[in-house]
Amino acid sequence: MPRNGEKVHRCLQQAALELFRERGYDQTTATEIAARAGVTERTFFRHFADKREVLFGGSGDLRAVLVEKILQAPDVVEPLRVVTGVLAEFYWESLGSRDFQRQRHALIAANSELLERDLIKHRSIAVGFTDALRQRGVDADIAQLAARVGIQVFITAYEHWLEAGDKADLATISESVMSLLATIVPTSAIPPSSH
Amino acid sequence: MPRNGEKVHRCLQQAALELFRERGYDQTTATEIAARAGVTERTFFRHFADKREVLFGGSGDLRAVLVEKILQAPDVVEPLRVVTGVLAEFYWESLGSRDFQRQRHALIAANSELLERDLIKHRSIAVGFTDALRQRGVDADIAQLAARVGIQVFITAYEHWLEAGDKADLATISESVMSLLATIVPTSAIPPSSH
Repeated sequence: MPRNGEKVHRCLQQAALELFRERGYDQTTATEIAARAGVTERTFFRHFADKREVLFGGSGDLRAVLVEKILQAPDVVEPLRVVTGVLAEFYWESLGSRDFQRQRHALIAANSELLERDLIKHRSIAVGFTDALRQRGVDADIAQLAARVGIQVFITAYEHWLEAGDKADLATISESVMSLLATIVPTSAIPPSSH
Repeated sequence: MPRNGEKVHRCLQQAALELFRERGYDQTTATEIAARAGVTERTFFRHFADKREVLFGGSGDLRAVLVEKILQAPDVVEPLRVVTGVLAEFYWESLGSRDFQRQRHALIAANSELLERDLIKHRSIAVGFTDALRQRGVDADIAQLAARVGIQVFITAYEHWLEAGDKADLATISESVMSLLATIVPTSAIPPSSH
């Protein structure tokens, strides 16, 4: 995207966030967001497919970047850590300032339409990660589990990070959540209960 | 729900599944589902809030049942296994026959609107489980992680179960996925990469 396009993109996101907070998500239209950002409705739709998409970067770019990082990871000996590592390093980067992300996250959590979009984006990332890990030679079942569980570990860490002070480091928090997971995964296989 | 209501409920679900497969989800209306099931549109909306909801049991009952099972679990020493255990024992029960569930799952996976609803239901169950585990005295962070990761473990097992022969046991498959998870969770905390 050219520099100017990028600026318009951010302006639209900021305008949307303001309007969603002022009037509520349901009461805000794409036209109003465009007007607040000082661009035409047509420009809005060149950047975003719909009103929901304005909080999600707009283009599947993030997913493509993340999947590429998995494909380029130095090794995939620890697939779960590859997943959380890539997310902790690159997920938040394209989403704007931390303050923007805090506001964005609060909006998403409070609106089921936005939450659904968020969840399906995560799922799409999980599918992309599964394929990428398989391409790297990871067993199919392990690839899928690492992608799915890794995203949960990361999202949990990401939420802690948003709540934490500005000096908190996402990779460190992500490792803490991983350590916590290690304490709750049963290490011995106990026969399942009969029923 | 009275016996007759339950029968109508199932008829509506079966009619919806048939129509979704014949015409596609988008091309099917609630009115048509009601007609196929031999009831009025009004009856449809007494059972389901909207067309999407017809594949999801309709009422949050499943979530309430599952949360109650967590609250009544004999112990919560292994919160992750409590989560997968309750899901493996009760999740599929209310969703109809295995063949119905196979068709239902394939439909959901192929339609993003349905998939979004499915994902938000899982998230809602995760939130309910987190609260229930906390009520049982589990640490808040562990409760949340066990709920989120446990659901991923279960969903992965559930998908294997749907693909497996009719004699496959969901609890056994769920334990296998848990064992697989144990093999990929790093047991030693390695310092996060600097960046």
